Amino acid sequence: MEIKVLKNVMIKNNIKAVDNKNQFLKNNVLSLNLVSSPGAGKTTLLEKTIELLNNKYKVSVIEGDLYTSRDAERLTKFNIPLVQINTEGGCHLDARMIGGALEEIDLQIMDIVFVENVGNLVCPASFDLGEEARVLVYSITEGEDKPKKYETMFKTADVVLINKVDLASACNVDIEKVEEEIKSINHNCVVFKISALNKTSLNEWIKWLEGKVERIKKN
Amino acid sequence: MEIKVLKNVMIKNNIKAVDNKNQFLKNNVLSLNLVSSPGAGKTTLLEKTIELLNNKYKVSVIEGDLYTSRDAERLTKFNIPLVQINTEGGCHLDARMIGGALEEIDLQIMDIVFVENVGNLVCPASFDLGEEARVLVYSITEGEDKPKKYETMFKTADVVLINKVDLASACNVDIEKVEEEIKSINHNCVVFKISALNKTSLNEWIKWLEGKVERIKKN
Repeated sequence: MEIKVLKNVMIKNNIKAVDNKNQFLKNNVLSLNLVSSPGAGKTTLLEKTIELLNNKYKVSVIEGDLYTSRDAERLTKFNIPLVQINTEGGCHLDARMIGGALEEIDLQIMDIVFVENVGNLVCPASFDLGEEARVLVYSITEGEDKPKKYETMFKTADVVLINKVDLASACNVDIEKVEEEIKSINHNCVVFKISALNKTSLNEWIKWLEGKVERIKKN
Repeated sequence: MEIKVLKNVMIKNNIKAVDNKNQFLKNNVLSLNLVSSPGAGKTTLLEKTIELLNNKYKVSVIEGDLYTSRDAERLTKFNIPLVQINTEGGCHLDARMIGGALEEIDLQIMDIVFVENVGNLVCPASFDLGEEARVLVYSITEGEDKPKKYETMFKTADVVLINKVDLASACNVDIEKVEEEIKSINHNCVVFKISALNKTSLNEWIKWLEGKVERIKKN
């Protein structure tokens, strides 16, 4: 009985995700689903990324949080369309929530929609939002052994940003070992090593992002 | 329909949690549910705690993980009863799983049972396991703003161990501010500031633990 209901939830989610995907495609908008543990640096990455894109593209952000609007408030300085979703304790965003948020965004004039998911390395892995790519921010302070422990998330990521690499030696973590384990789980994902506070470290990520936008615009 | 099923799940969990609680109480065993984000330091805390208790008490550990036995393997050196629960992707432990694990542990000769939950600051908050106290390990590397963002978890904790305090300045985090926010959400919880790798910083935590065991033994 429980399994049946759970299946229904997943089927409903995936149908809605296809709707979202079609909206993004029709409007040539790059959509990215940012996932991570709490405090891995998704919002800081967004702040620095938006600064570095320097108004080259029209960007909007859908913020997912259990209760507060703290992350969205940090982005108001950019004067871009922001939609806050509060899950009221819920552990992930789903495609229906994103569908509702998209009603508040004029996709026709957008180039990129970032979705910042709830900080959780487990549940968001199972919910397709209809995004073009899933971007996993992994903080090196979480240790060497997490990729295999949270395999579904690492398996379903298109990009992994290993963040806070400046703290690797203080945390006694071997970055290469982390990268190797990620690649052993998911050979096709793109891995960038960054320290989100240091803009130079974001160069390759920004290039990847720009390449994606340009390819989608050509369609 | 969905809400009804979810309610049933919660009622079933809470009934099973009472069973577990009764088993712990009947055998005068202190039971602790360790919760945190991924990589906040639960297993390191367990390693150092078991070392510091230095065979004064009979300890066993129930390890919760999505897929691997990596945390349990780190504890085999102590030659204590260990039970591994793999949730196969599931985001939390529930009371039924703990009930199953307890069949493998001789509670009559135990003093402390530690349960290390799945690394997740959201879902485990909603599942009572029948434990005497919920112990939240919060890594300072996760930033200043998380207590209100993950309010249910901070609200339901009996103890909060603020971990990795040696990294506070590198992460530009004000520890006092974090403690203030925790206290504003949950005035009654006990807060300890630790660096799990530094055993001296664990003195107060060990004293708390010993006090709890002695009180339970007197019953």
